[in-house]
Amino acid sequence: MNTGTALVISAHSADFVWRCGGAIALHQQKGIDVTVVCLSYGERGESAKLWKQEGMTLDRVKTERRKEAESAAAALGVADIQFLDCGDYPLQLDRDEKFRLVDVIRKVQPGFILTHSKYDPYNTDHMYASELTLEARMIAQAWGHNPGEKVLGAPQVYLFEPHQTEQMAWKPDVFLDITPVWDRKWAAIQCMQGQEHLWHYYENVGENRGNHFRRNSGGQSGGRDCRYAEGFQSVFPRTVDEL
Amino acid sequence: MNTGTALVISAHSADFVWRCGGAIALHQQKGIDVTVVCLSYGERGESAKLWKQEGMTLDRVKTERRKEAESAAAALGVADIQFLDCGDYPLQLDRDEKFRLVDVIRKVQPGFILTHSKYDPYNTDHMYASELTLEARMIAQAWGHNPGEKVLGAPQVYLFEPHQTEQMAWKPDVFLDITPVWDRKWAAIQCMQGQEHLWHYYENVGENRGNHFRRNSGGQSGGRDCRYAEGFQSVFPRTVDEL
Amino acid sequence: MNTGTALVISAHSADFVWRCGGAIALHQQKGIDVTVVCLSYGERGESAKLWKQEGMTLDRVKTERRKEAESAAAALGVADIQFLDCGDYPLQLDRDEKFRLVDVIRKVQPGFILTHSKYDPYNTDHMYASELTLEARMIAQAWGHNPGEKVLGAPQVYLFEPHQTEQMAWKPDVFLDITPVWDRKWAAIQCMQGQEHLWHYYENVGENRGNHFRRNSGGQSGGRDCRYAEGFQSVFPRTVDEL
Amino acid sequence: MNTGTALVISAHSADFVWRCGGAIALHQQKGIDVTVVCLSYGERGESAKLWKQEGMTLDRVKTERRKEAESAAAALGVADIQFLDCGDYPLQLDRDEKFRLVDVIRKVQPGFILTHSKYDPYNTDHMYASELTLEARMIAQAWGHNPGEKVLGAPQVYLFEPHQTEQMAWKPDVFLDITPVWDRKWAAIQCMQGQEHLWHYYENVGENRGNHFRRNSGGQSGGRDCRYAEGFQSVFPRTVDEL
Amino acid sequence: MNTGTALVISAHSADFVWRCGGAIALHQQKGIDVTVVCLSYGERGESAKLWKQEGMTLDRVKTERRKEAESAAAALGVADIQFLDCGDYPLQLDRDEKFRLVDVIRKVQPGFILTHSKYDPYNTDHMYASELTLEARMIAQAWGHNPGEKVLGAPQVYLFEPHQTEQMAWKPDVFLDITPVWDRKWAAIQCMQGQEHLWHYYENVGENRGNHFRRNSGGQSGGRDCRYAEGFQSVFPRTVDEL
Amino acid sequence: MNTGTALVISAHSADFVWRCGGAIALHQQKGIDVTVVCLSYGERGESAKLWKQEGMTLDRVKTERRKEAESAAAALGVADIQFLDCGDYPLQLDRDEKFRLVDVIRKVQPGFILTHSKYDPYNTDHMYASELTLEARMIAQAWGHNPGEKVLGAPQVYLFEPHQTEQMAWKPDVFLDITPVWDRKWAAIQCMQGQEHLWHYYENVGENRGNHFRRNSGGQSGGRDCRYAEGFQSVFPRTVDEL
Repeated sequence: MNTGTALVISAHSADFVWRCGGAIALHQQKGIDVTVVCLSYGERGESAKLWKQEGMTLDRVKTERRKEAESAAAALGVADIQFLDCGDYPLQLDRDEKFRLVDVIRKVQPGFILTHSKYDPYNTDHMYASELTLEARMIAQAWGHNPGEKVLGAPQVYLFEPHQTEQMAWKPDVFLDITPVWDRKWAAIQCMQGQEHLWHYYENVGENRGNHFRRNSGGQSGGRDCRYAEGFQSVFPRTVDEL
Repeated sequence: MNTGTALVISAHSADFVWRCGGAIALHQQKGIDVTVVCLSYGERGESAKLWKQEGMTLDRVKTERRKEAESAAAALGVADIQFLDCGDYPLQLDRDEKFRLVDVIRKVQPGFILTHSKYDPYNTDHMYASELTLEARMIAQAWGHNPGEKVLGAPQVYLFEPHQTEQMAWKPDVFLDITPVWDRKWAAIQCMQGQEHLWHYYENVGENRGNHFRRNSGGQSGGRDCRYAEGFQSVFPRTVDEL
Repeated sequence: MNTGTALVISAHSADFVWRCGGAIALHQQKGIDVTVVCLSYGERGESAKLWKQEGMTLDRVKTERRKEAESAAAALGVADIQFLDCGDYPLQLDRDEKFRLVDVIRKVQPGFILTHSKYDPYNTDHMYASELTLEARMIAQAWGHNPGEKVLGAPQVYLFEPHQTEQMAWKPDVFLDITPVWDRKWAAIQCMQGQEHLWHYYENVGENRGNHFRRNSGGQSGGRDCRYAEGFQSVFPRTVDEL
Repeated sequence: MNTGTALVISAHSADFVWRCGGAIALHQQKGIDVTVVCLSYGERGESAKLWKQEGMTLDRVKTERRKEAESAAAALGVADIQFLDCGDYPLQLDRDEKFRLVDVIRKVQPGFILTHSKYDPYNTDHMYASELTLEARMIAQAWGHNPGEKVLGAPQVYLFEPHQTEQMAWKPDVFLDITPVWDRKWAAIQCMQGQEHLWHYYENVGENRGNHFRRNSGGQSGGRDCRYAEGFQSVFPRTVDEL
Repeated sequence: MNTGTALVISAHSADFVWRCGGAIALHQQKGIDVTVVCLSYGERGESAKLWKQEGMTLDRVKTERRKEAESAAAALGVADIQFLDCGDYPLQLDRDEKFRLVDVIRKVQPGFILTHSKYDPYNTDHMYASELTLEARMIAQAWGHNPGEKVLGAPQVYLFEPHQTEQMAWKPDVFLDITPVWDRKWAAIQCMQGQEHLWHYYENVGENRGNHFRRNSGGQSGGRDCRYAEGFQSVFPRTVDEL
Repeated sequence: MNTGTALVISAHSADFVWRCGGAIALHQQKGIDVTVVCLSYGERGESAKLWKQEGMTLDRVKTERRKEAESAAAALGVADIQFLDCGDYPLQLDRDEKFRLVDVIRKVQPGFILTHSKYDPYNTDHMYASELTLEARMIAQAWGHNPGEKVLGAPQVYLFEPHQTEQMAWKPDVFLDITPVWDRKWAAIQCMQGQEHLWHYYENVGENRGNHFRRNSGGQSGGRDCRYAEGFQSVFPRTVDEL
């Protein structure tokens, strides 16, 4: 449903780049304002390179991670990026923090939401963010939560691509052609100085998802030349006027 | 993918009415030509009322069932209905019969295909038709099958609603608003003189799927007034330019 | 196991009506005392109609919801209804509140328990209530919890029908004939003044589950005329002396 | 549904002993006539000990296996045992053989049917027998199959315990107390001279399923002393008048 | 990965005996130091026999349970057993308690970890321990958790055998031959004075898993004579140099 | 189990290259003789490029496909490659053809078998080959099939990587480091002149599976530098002497 806005809920501050950077840039280009919420900076668990530096502190890690995320967001043309700073490894929100997330959702009134896969034995923060998104979406729909505020409709939730998809029981049911904005995603990826070992990996993912797009969009003999794509798994059924 | 045509593969001659009559009428109204293939008449297994008549024969049952199906097809505005007469309970196609089905598919070049759910412990013909559809779709894509003919692209396959959905592990991921053509579906349903006990059942299904449409399309406070809907489960992922 | 009592654990104060009102009335009629526990009033999330009234407050919503639930309980002939008032959207019980629920379970000593489906992406309170029921059942079985009290045996837990069953991965394995008490369920449904849009929906559900009852109980040509039924999914295996 | 009869469909001639010998003996004792159909003798695939003898022939193997099965059937008090002799490894029935099986089903008019698990990567004959049972049940329900014969109702199908249950995705939902007839099952087991290495294994299974019965039937401190049980997985939902 | 150490995370103080006592003794014998962490004593929920004694107190139950566990650990040759005393029924760890578990993991640096199955409707403590293990493993891998400490690598997590495996959706993918240490496991089992009713049950399990070992290791006519085995389900994929 | 041999069962003549070319080359290098069985040439369904040539015939397609497969096999150092020529799109073996496959299995006496994933809605030949492998393995184990021949033991069956893994419900549980033989796999891939569009795709797969290998084999800070890997899903449990 095109409401002119979309929302990304990212457990750690880099997840949104690898997993849906193309979707963000593409929709921004189409005039949809995308807000990214980083629940944590991934400061404890996803900043190994920084922690290997002499005399590193938690605050400095957060500052560095924030800078990287802001640069990547700029490269993607993100409308707004917010850092809830709830801590990671483990990520856990108390009632007030959950309500802050609900505030964001209600303010954005997203046409759709992007977040993590339902299952991830490697990273329980990812599973937690996925559950939390459903919980916050439900609260945002409640007429009795902050009565008088505009309640949320029923936006689709798309689960973006985890690392090692098959281990996460993640099955994409939609492929998005991100060819027109690949250069922006690639620029955003290169902002992730601390995780250079993943750059080429996600380039490969983008190319191979492009192959999947072509396989499903038309067949052997023709079809549009999608070169890069991203996959998503829908949580809710679609409602349509035509198959 | 809108190719201007669609195809329904129905194990028995009445299945297409209950399960996707609305989709048929709706797409016909939109100018999509829908072809219905009935693999059998359901003459042995789904014609109890006829068989209870004195002196009934297999040929007479087939004739009656065909008439009913043709009337229903007319009510829905079906472009073409074909009866492959492969026998039922059990339904089983040999290699030549499969190739006849492939011929139909290639001739129609459907933008999408509708057929039965993957699992059905009550009715193994339904499961068989579902498997068969995937097999025939694959053969129709083969450049080496009747070389020179136009091969099939990669149309979506939608699994329509079985009876007792939860027992069939069927999970709809798309709801189609059939309100504009409900009167046509209702007229087609009433052609099914032999199964009057199911008329009201499928009226209820149509209404309750309308509720599901509304639940997913917008929420509590607004949204279009869909009164009747049909649900479908997609086999393949979608390819899109926008989420 | 007939212990003469049964227990319903309902996340919000209306759930027990739509989902197992028939089972409640039927067992009451058979002399089984049914206790209903409402963990919350659904005051924030399921009372949109009330919140749309000028000057509404949380307390007034709770009062209204409680009245409706008590009326419905009376219509069903419920032996006892208890409101734990733990809050909703999100529902979350601390250790003491869990122990209050355990107290109820131990006092009732139910022959079986009815609660929500295991999965529900639309409503995380429902999932939570389902998990909580298993946790509380386990605590109630512990000899070291309030030593001296009578511990719980091993009652079956039945998951009642959620809205949009297929999205919740809910599969009923038992259908209960509620024809004899349908008028009572219908009366209870009509107590739900705030959710009139659901009355007809659940009437349809009752009728169509009746069809499923007949399909599974005997067949085409005969069998009892069950007109309304409710479906349930068992969590634990049954133990029998005869298949 | 107690129709006074039951039917076991066994891929090979020994399966019925290990997997549901207790259920057979128990129901016979209760006055239910149980018919056992052996689709094959297991002559090629489950008769290693015989084939190791000098000069063994297929006919002699069949004769030996038949004797063993008949002895076991006698020990269990089986009303009737029939050998369809369709061949094994692989087991496959043509249309006529399927109709012979349907004839048996219609003649027996079983209140319930017992057969193999749905999945078995070790033994594709077992999977085949399970599928075949659903197919034959469906044909037996068809008014157009041998019109004039009494059609089948809708008997439950129970999947009996496979070897290595977890590999077969088999999940029992009912445990049957076979303590009163354990001596008969043990006697039948001992008729299986060619598979002595499995006797103790299935004694252990019987004992441990007894433990599962007790765990689910009542709890820690009391309950009936079931010492041996068998587990079954139901294919279809139950229809009841009381939970 | 052989790091010379292994870790068992047990919800209650007896679980490690029944479920992986053989694995513990076997690896100790091979020179791997095994540490067992008991998150609770099972003092409330798994000590029925003690609570039935006059004047029993929580402290005395804990003392008795600890003694039993220490005796069993000694019988198995465990290198170290630690009792975190976090309480049971329900088991729940706060942030500090989680970090104490992480401390143990980092100190041990296990080559592999053993814990409970992912699902258990009978015992939510078991599910909780399984989730907790993944969470603690993740925290132990974080460079920002107690910077300067040695972080954890990526050890395999094996889920050991629950009671009533099929109800827990537990599927073993590895069988370990524990024949050489069966006498040690049997001695440890006999330390469990409070649960004598389970001794023979787990003897049967050991024997039947031995049968499964033989079935999968070689076949009908030969192979090693494994008499007792234990089964495990791997959470993560293996990495190998040869299939 | 190292018997010195392995067997690949490939539906079409190119499958073995993309999906397990590395495993073949690696095991050959270790002295394991690998036999490849191509059930068909993929002559009808997977030879689009050839069929687009003027005047192409089925025989010429088969000849070309055979040449390609033989070249690839040579590049991988395959011990033996056999073409059963059973036809494709659809692939279907009659009893005699199945027995020819069994003959190969018995002659090879493989230590392990590699074949297709269990599910593939895009390509029913792949599903069929997977089922067939289990059936043929079972027949090869039967003492009564060609008595006197050496029966098969119980080799593991590994399902190799399909195209679009998530759609096939394929979950790898073992990653094999194929870095030492990547050049051989790359050479074999280049023999597939008709499917040049897939070369780079499978190069990406090899690289990204290398990442998965590293992620699971040791962790962030160290570990062997696996650059290319292949993933496999095991059908049967493993039997081990050490975890």
